[in-house]
Amino acid sequence: MELWFDLASNYSYLTLMRIEPLAERAGVSVRWEPFLLGPVFEAFGWNSSPFVLQKEKGAYVWKDMERQAAKYGLPWRKPARFPQNTVHAVRVALSGRDEPWVRPFCRAMARANFAEDRDISSAEAVRKALASLGLPVEEILARAQAAEEKPRLRAQVQRAQALGIFGAPTFFVDGEMYWGNDRLEDALDAACAGASRP
Amino acid sequence: MELWFDLASNYSYLTLMRIEPLAERAGVSVRWEPFLLGPVFEAFGWNSSPFVLQKEKGAYVWKDMERQAAKYGLPWRKPARFPQNTVHAVRVALSGRDEPWVRPFCRAMARANFAEDRDISSAEAVRKALASLGLPVEEILARAQAAEEKPRLRAQVQRAQALGIFGAPTFFVDGEMYWGNDRLEDALDAACAGASRP
Repeated sequence: MELWFDLASNYSYLTLMRIEPLAERAGVSVRWEPFLLGPVFEAFGWNSSPFVLQKEKGAYVWKDMERQAAKYGLPWRKPARFPQNTVHAVRVALSGRDEPWVRPFCRAMARANFAEDRDISSAEAVRKALASLGLPVEEILARAQAAEEKPRLRAQVQRAQALGIFGAPTFFVDGEMYWGNDRLEDALDAACAGASRP
Repeated sequence: MELWFDLASNYSYLTLMRIEPLAERAGVSVRWEPFLLGPVFEAFGWNSSPFVLQKEKGAYVWKDMERQAAKYGLPWRKPARFPQNTVHAVRVALSGRDEPWVRPFCRAMARANFAEDRDISSAEAVRKALASLGLPVEEILARAQAAEEKPRLRAQVQRAQALGIFGAPTFFVDGEMYWGNDRLEDALDAACAGASRP
């Protein structure tokens, strides 16, 4: 199963905090696919999140987030800045995608964004998050800032667009799309059923 | 608890088919509030459903509907016409809102739309649905076509807008909004908790 997410996305936060124990219990392995939602929205002609552009839905979403976080027992604070620019953070996540530190790093960034109302957009914020996890900061940043990483992130966004992704989180199981934190359980069920097929 | 819905809305179909046994089990009484989503979308500057206007989301929604209907054990057929004009049907539903025939009528119309792929927009289609339920067709239609019913439906749409409704189905519990079939269980849980408060 694939999980496509952006650290700027509030519903991605819920999924990032929930997915690991649920996937483990289900015996499903998940490939994390960090990407940027901003350029996807831009291609739709939107210059921000639909939660900003459509004020009725926006007003609702923050109430919904508060209740959903409470339902899942997750910390939550309405962010003062939304959506944040996550290009630094997502480039770091993508550059080390298959390494064990990436998942705790993503959770830490998403938590900073949606539970601690902190700025996660600056290179400095990313550096601090890496340091607070006891990670080799300079080594990780050097790799994320290497020349090939900018086109790599651009290609990742293009892959998201080619897959028809229009929001986050988005899951894929056997090529079928499941959109939104509300579909996490359905996607895991489908991945289980697929895995147990003869 | 209140349920706001449009017979043109595919996610309303899932809720209309599910809500009665769930509400009964939860001991929650639900007031049905039929309205038209079209004028709400028009006020946002949209000339159709977002599932038509945003083609990436639209492509996804029909896959999602197929899977959600299967999950709930509900019949489903992708409608050839979407969204249908439901002004006749919704006027009938609103004119008899508190009468016992309205709920089976709404389910029959939603099923015709989303499980049988039938035209539900004409006055004739509404007439046939009433007749097939063994209802006093002329009496019901005479009331729905009375002079006061047009402004009544207009006022109902304005109430929806004043409440901040931006989609359907939408639930209200103690003034709090819950949006979408995915929140039906949460809304019922909240209504239960509210009812048992001292």
